Amino acid sequence: MLIDLRSDTVTRPTPGMKEAMFSAPVGDDVFGEDPTVNTLEEKIAKLFGMEAAIFCPSGTMTNQIAIRLHTRPQTEVICHKYSHIYLYEGGGIMANSLASVKLLDGDLGKITASQIEESINPDDVHAPETTLVSLENTMNKGGGSIYTLEEIKPIYQLCKEKGLKLHLDGARLFNALVETGEKPAAWGAHFDTISICLSKGLGCPIGSVLLGTKADIKRARKVRKVFGGGMRQAGFLAAAGIYALDHQVERLKEDHARARELGKMLAKLPVVSEILPVSTNIVIARLEGISPEEFMKRLAEKNIKSVKFGKDLVRFVTHHDFKDEHLYEFGRRISSLF
Amino acid sequence: MLIDLRSDTVTRPTPGMKEAMFSAPVGDDVFGEDPTVNTLEEKIAKLFGMEAAIFCPSGTMTNQIAIRLHTRPQTEVICHKYSHIYLYEGGGIMANSLASVKLLDGDLGKITASQIEESINPDDVHAPETTLVSLENTMNKGGGSIYTLEEIKPIYQLCKEKGLKLHLDGARLFNALVETGEKPAAWGAHFDTISICLSKGLGCPIGSVLLGTKADIKRARKVRKVFGGGMRQAGFLAAAGIYALDHQVERLKEDHARARELGKMLAKLPVVSEILPVSTNIVIARLEGISPEEFMKRLAEKNIKSVKFGKDLVRFVTHHDFKDEHLYEFGRRISSLF
Amino acid sequence: MLIDLRSDTVTRPTPGMKEAMFSAPVGDDVFGEDPTVNTLEEKIAKLFGMEAAIFCPSGTMTNQIAIRLHTRPQTEVICHKYSHIYLYEGGGIMANSLASVKLLDGDLGKITASQIEESINPDDVHAPETTLVSLENTMNKGGGSIYTLEEIKPIYQLCKEKGLKLHLDGARLFNALVETGEKPAAWGAHFDTISICLSKGLGCPIGSVLLGTKADIKRARKVRKVFGGGMRQAGFLAAAGIYALDHQVERLKEDHARARELGKMLAKLPVVSEILPVSTNIVIARLEGISPEEFMKRLAEKNIKSVKFGKDLVRFVTHHDFKDEHLYEFGRRISSLF
Amino acid sequence: MLIDLRSDTVTRPTPGMKEAMFSAPVGDDVFGEDPTVNTLEEKIAKLFGMEAAIFCPSGTMTNQIAIRLHTRPQTEVICHKYSHIYLYEGGGIMANSLASVKLLDGDLGKITASQIEESINPDDVHAPETTLVSLENTMNKGGGSIYTLEEIKPIYQLCKEKGLKLHLDGARLFNALVETGEKPAAWGAHFDTISICLSKGLGCPIGSVLLGTKADIKRARKVRKVFGGGMRQAGFLAAAGIYALDHQVERLKEDHARARELGKMLAKLPVVSEILPVSTNIVIARLEGISPEEFMKRLAEKNIKSVKFGKDLVRFVTHHDFKDEHLYEFGRRISSLF
Repeated sequence: MLIDLRSDTVTRPTPGMKEAMFSAPVGDDVFGEDPTVNTLEEKIAKLFGMEAAIFCPSGTMTNQIAIRLHTRPQTEVICHKYSHIYLYEGGGIMANSLASVKLLDGDLGKITASQIEESINPDDVHAPETTLVSLENTMNKGGGSIYTLEEIKPIYQLCKEKGLKLHLDGARLFNALVETGEKPAAWGAHFDTISICLSKGLGCPIGSVLLGTKADIKRARKVRKVFGGGMRQAGFLAAAGIYALDHQVERLKEDHARARELGKMLAKLPVVSEILPVSTNIVIARLEGISPEEFMKRLAEKNIKSVKFGKDLVRFVTHHDFKDEHLYEFGRRISSLF
Repeated sequence: MLIDLRSDTVTRPTPGMKEAMFSAPVGDDVFGEDPTVNTLEEKIAKLFGMEAAIFCPSGTMTNQIAIRLHTRPQTEVICHKYSHIYLYEGGGIMANSLASVKLLDGDLGKITASQIEESINPDDVHAPETTLVSLENTMNKGGGSIYTLEEIKPIYQLCKEKGLKLHLDGARLFNALVETGEKPAAWGAHFDTISICLSKGLGCPIGSVLLGTKADIKRARKVRKVFGGGMRQAGFLAAAGIYALDHQVERLKEDHARARELGKMLAKLPVVSEILPVSTNIVIARLEGISPEEFMKRLAEKNIKSVKFGKDLVRFVTHHDFKDEHLYEFGRRISSLF
Repeated sequence: MLIDLRSDTVTRPTPGMKEAMFSAPVGDDVFGEDPTVNTLEEKIAKLFGMEAAIFCPSGTMTNQIAIRLHTRPQTEVICHKYSHIYLYEGGGIMANSLASVKLLDGDLGKITASQIEESINPDDVHAPETTLVSLENTMNKGGGSIYTLEEIKPIYQLCKEKGLKLHLDGARLFNALVETGEKPAAWGAHFDTISICLSKGLGCPIGSVLLGTKADIKRARKVRKVFGGGMRQAGFLAAAGIYALDHQVERLKEDHARARELGKMLAKLPVVSEILPVSTNIVIARLEGISPEEFMKRLAEKNIKSVKFGKDLVRFVTHHDFKDEHLYEFGRRISSLF
Repeated sequence: MLIDLRSDTVTRPTPGMKEAMFSAPVGDDVFGEDPTVNTLEEKIAKLFGMEAAIFCPSGTMTNQIAIRLHTRPQTEVICHKYSHIYLYEGGGIMANSLASVKLLDGDLGKITASQIEESINPDDVHAPETTLVSLENTMNKGGGSIYTLEEIKPIYQLCKEKGLKLHLDGARLFNALVETGEKPAAWGAHFDTISICLSKGLGCPIGSVLLGTKADIKRARKVRKVFGGGMRQAGFLAAAGIYALDHQVERLKEDHARARELGKMLAKLPVVSEILPVSTNIVIARLEGISPEEFMKRLAEKNIKSVKFGKDLVRFVTHHDFKDEHLYEFGRRISSLF
């Protein structure tokens, strides 16, 4: 039995989701005529209390479109130095938007209003103009750490005052929301744009959604076109998203519970010096006396997959194809390993 | 009964195709582990005798990736002034690749080696460096016109001599091949990259494929990532492509036969002054004494959809959801219209 | 005696101009403290009745900055297909601004309001958004042809109505103004930005000026910085510009008179089939029975320099180092050549 | 008497330099015909033992051209987080070259081979490809700190092994060389490109030079054109550069001696907690109990100019218009200030 903990993107759709996909009415979304895509976009926009939404093939695309909306060449994006938008999107901030980055440090991948305030560039020809702050919740490289709405409010306030746009890379936002009990609409009220991945913990095969104002989402359709993200009968994919919103959100708590257990199992290993706080479905283990490569190789020999996440770090992500029996089996296999 | 002749992209998958989609084994294609995507990429690369292929969400993405591969900022692409890559891809040649365009004229959207030769920029600081020639077959704005391989050969030869790359926007290449009987591999031998749409006449819901060398396709994966085109369990979509290649290629001839009939019907209308030569599945009618808007409105009142294609032009495209009964019905409805 | 008619850029400063340069007070213009640069910028802005000006190292830079001000990635610039900004600025519209081009045709390099109106892209995801119209006066590739203010007014009006910006590449605008007698301020009232070259007919060694609103010129300083156009003690160069505005504008008429004579001389040659109408200081000869290369080689043997300007075209430009004696000598030398 | 210590760019040319400028033979450098520009380019290339050089209006332009030569969209530049190319060039790495940045930390603005080695991105679609390392010598934000050639060698070696290009922002390289006694040619042998400012300590009014291979400098001319850096009779400016190389290099030692004295004077102030090590002509003072704004205001009341250089830092730069009498007067004025 393979135990694949590399990412929550490896899941395959459940039978219910597949049934929903298979029976969805579809049309040509480039003409705006796919009824299922339209339903998904309206449904999720309404859920977050935002004006409009656009369905895209990936979270990289929704983030990259948002960055394009809120920047111009010679502007600057403030984000944590471990942000997905900076580290894992192919250099897109620069290559797609010609924007610069101000990279902040902060515990568990999180940044604060006062840090941001100090990082806004002065009005001077030498520096790009700061126009955007981008946050990530949950924060992947922070071990699935959570921003609470209370932490967001001063950042939101600062952005209002300074005329900055505020984007949320909410690839795993629902993981945060099921933990905190905060409402999607409360989050929608604090950001100019939010991107949400359907293909991570929510279990869809493909797709992300970008939320924003009607005007921004109209412009987003133009950016999606030039990136090549306009799809035809995309309703098959959107149907999975609708199904996930209806049936697979609360389930994320199970992933979190299993992640906590998995963290405890790993913490007992002699080669693990530290487990980053486990807030959601991500477990990051710091190794000592062994390289990530060697550690992962040993796990792989036991048919367990994980990913390197830094010089001495390895990441494990729980998801809906990782059940109690996998957890138990994981514990059994690693107990004898080191 | 709606008769939708706006594009061959409006088709919905056949039952056989749907069955293939939903029974396909899938995996995470970002990790390179979707078996159905891998099968499709290998199958189509082999068919064209090219080294490698990459599956993408749209033909715009495959074209835009190809352009990025073959240009740098301050280089120039030679293409027909009616090319899809210039007119309909959101300004992507410039916005994605920072490349300039040399726009040539030519009958039915086609250009020749001697025109290209004259258009290569001199080695001079004032002009961008010409690095790429891009052709389109069939040529959408040329009324679905066909390049034969004999027409390609001198262009191929010129590009070799001058060190230019040669890309084919083969969104509807199979429409040409079923008419000429030329082999895919013969085409694969004459281009650096070819993009093929699965979601047009081939009838798939979503997707295009870019073909090229292993090195180019490796780089293409990086460009696809930054555009946001990396998808997870994309095998559901790739399965449709495999099915189409196996079952829906020869069928394109039916679309062509119906297009010829449709052209004859339109030619009889008093408000139609000319039908561009009908080579494949596209029919372009030139109007006289009526605007495209008014003409299309009258058709729409009869539940017939078409698209404006120029100041006095309207386009009709046949496809696998347009059967003999639709053709007959089309004739019946327009006969009394003008 | 070398007769260099390649361009009006080859001139060397007059003794008066050099004296002005040498004695100018200077400071660090990056700090905004070069008094001579400030004087030039204020003087020329006032002359054109525009709010502000910025001094740059070249006309390519002033044009490219203007294009950046008036576009974003995925927008489109309407201009004549023979425009300097498209042909001779290294592909900068695309490479610097990621903007697309709509290239219009028109006699003597000029375009009309109705052509522009037809070329504005529809509000559709497939097409870049048209945001800028750029004209050139005098028009280099049109043989130094002149737009009159009466021709500009309907274009200005259209741009107002459609929300388009209007830029003037006025590299040789003063050549037009001395012929028509129109006032600089009348031109300033009809454009969002105007670029003026000091290093062409005006005879300065280096420099161009971009005129616009205060807000646009403030942004222009930021673009100039990123292009590397911020200079330190630039007052030496600006002093030449002030001198030229005071002493070398009316003199342009002499260049025009000599150009007309030169055109007549060329017209008599058996290998010249046509001289484009000579409106200012540019003479374009169409050849027959001889290639531009061979024609120019023969001239070069007589120590006369010219430039190829198309398949069968050669360009001659008069300037302040081309005096009556050069004109006479030119006639003498070519009379025996063919 | 104004004591302007804001930058070594504020200097005005000496009488000897002005004489050289205004007696220089000039021509049209866009045609490659300015003899003085050609002489400067050859002279400095030879001095550094490099194949070719190109004269540009600013150090920002020479750096930005170098970055363009060594990157493509979706590549990454490794540099210190305090680099001029990242902080003070308008976001040009991203806006001009669409490249990403990996920002390293390190004492006095310097980085090491092992840091660089750890920062090279893996061959993975998620990350931009590392192609360039850029160093700065002397390091402005490091207080004019010096890299010795011994420190460069392992970096050079690493870049060779890894196939990375190595650029030197040598805006103030001569300041380093006069201190260490190292030879220009020894530096030329260790970099792919070097940019040198003529308008800083060397005292020229305008201009920088980029050094590299013939092939790179040929491409650089194309990039210079698109940035708008092609100038006409630039020999007036190049003549100053030739003069500076001949007469004003060794003099930099005087600036360094005065900077050391100035550092000692500042160190005595009760509001100064630390002076960064003074290696060349830059003095950075860390304040305590007073803000930079207030500190600079008090100095300005005594007609002394300086610049803020961080939250609690102020920078002073000595230069050839800052003589012994200014140093003495500086000491006199500040002694009574705090």
